[in-house]
Amino acid sequence: MILFHDQLTKRENAQVDIEDRGYQFGDGIYEVIRVYNGKAFRLQDHLDRFQRSADEISLQLPYNLERLSQLLQELVQTNQLADGTVYLQTSRGVAPRSHPFPEESHSVIVAYTVEAERPLNHLQNGIRTMTQPDIRWLRCDIKSLNLLGAVLAKQKAKEHGCQESILHRDETVTEGSSTNVFLAKDGQLFTHPANNLILHGITRQVVLELAADMGIPVKEEAFTLQDLHRADEVFITSTTMEITPVIEIDGTPVGDSTPGNLVRRLQAAFEHQI
Amino acid sequence: MILFHDQLTKRENAQVDIEDRGYQFGDGIYEVIRVYNGKAFRLQDHLDRFQRSADEISLQLPYNLERLSQLLQELVQTNQLADGTVYLQTSRGVAPRSHPFPEESHSVIVAYTVEAERPLNHLQNGIRTMTQPDIRWLRCDIKSLNLLGAVLAKQKAKEHGCQESILHRDETVTEGSSTNVFLAKDGQLFTHPANNLILHGITRQVVLELAADMGIPVKEEAFTLQDLHRADEVFITSTTMEITPVIEIDGTPVGDSTPGNLVRRLQAAFEHQI
Repeated sequence: MILFHDQLTKRENAQVDIEDRGYQFGDGIYEVIRVYNGKAFRLQDHLDRFQRSADEISLQLPYNLERLSQLLQELVQTNQLADGTVYLQTSRGVAPRSHPFPEESHSVIVAYTVEAERPLNHLQNGIRTMTQPDIRWLRCDIKSLNLLGAVLAKQKAKEHGCQESILHRDETVTEGSSTNVFLAKDGQLFTHPANNLILHGITRQVVLELAADMGIPVKEEAFTLQDLHRADEVFITSTTMEITPVIEIDGTPVGDSTPGNLVRRLQAAFEHQI
Repeated sequence: MILFHDQLTKRENAQVDIEDRGYQFGDGIYEVIRVYNGKAFRLQDHLDRFQRSADEISLQLPYNLERLSQLLQELVQTNQLADGTVYLQTSRGVAPRSHPFPEESHSVIVAYTVEAERPLNHLQNGIRTMTQPDIRWLRCDIKSLNLLGAVLAKQKAKEHGCQESILHRDETVTEGSSTNVFLAKDGQLFTHPANNLILHGITRQVVLELAADMGIPVKEEAFTLQDLHRADEVFITSTTMEITPVIEIDGTPVGDSTPGNLVRRLQAAFEHQI
């Protein structure tokens, strides 16, 4: 079953109109929520961010977050999802194609579940990455459906045998194509500040909280490509990739090419959260 | 009737899957083609640009441009469209959601016609505009479905009683939210070069050709906000707005607040093309 508008229904009943603004303009927003043991992890944080994204593009959600939360949990239960994700999106709805917001349109909600294992191999052994210019728009803090820049960056990483692209504007590292990026240097963590140039990741936020609890100093400061290449440790965070060590950047090993001490401690602490 | 995949069919038969990459990533491209007296204007130019957009994002069109051209003309005839537009889009097709290109997917083509008058009032009297920061991605030369930046800019213009937003990166004017921008100063035309920061408009190209024929010098050079405010004439071009004079920018009149001599000459020459 999937959630379509405000009903759980069979997947084949959910058909999108060709003039849905999500289809013609990418005029909509989304969330991906991790489910562990049947429980949606940090659900409220995802819903709050969903509401913020909606507000930032003046998209009226069709009902409130309480009801949405209830429907998503009902969806997880109905599908008996133990481990996997919930994909949730809302578009501004169907209207004759014209750039400005339509006078009258009803936003369209779709959500469905996907079974998925945790990425244990990557969590254990780390991933290879490459760097690429960040060509995306200047409101990456909005989790919108305009993802072509991220798609192209991820595809290029794949073609180079990498699992992620680390993006940079001029010399400044922003984030990964679908992840946030941290580096560790001399016992301190650095990550790009949560401004308009990055998505404010939920797992990024969890790492900030864990680090505070563990007494690891963190600076939310932008760093350069050079800093990245000189880091003791690098790791990326996202809802599906959790806290994944980066062992290689552009063919060059990070540190001694194995996951470092800080990322291991953060991973261990994260295990207690889920 | 509409075109869906490679068939003319009733609109209600064309339903989009929720996992169409056009819906989830804006992973697709489009064109809007003007029809005058039943004839698609500059159709081959639009199709060539469509192919170029596809190539730039490595999207495989399901059939060649000759066949597409034939089907679009059949669509116009079947719908007995005299004056209006053809909207054409292709997405990368349906696949389980994941950023990289799917190993196997079949791109989805949709096209439909819309009856529309020419914007005679705006062509005659000109439009009001405002300036706004250009927050879009750095591949505006690809006519992609990632249009949220343009949507937000056009909406803001509308809220300010304007018909278009003129976008700028720092002090440099790029283009309008759905148009190209020209200025005239001392008998010379200026417009942003056709690089990655603007869409290479078909009507922009027509104006360059007309100006060459008419002996009006044109420089494809970026100009600043200050240049814009000091221009003798300003006009915008697009498939649906044709060559439209700009009579006001940010509440300040352009020239004497009426369409200028050069834009009138270009409009007259354009009439002979259509």
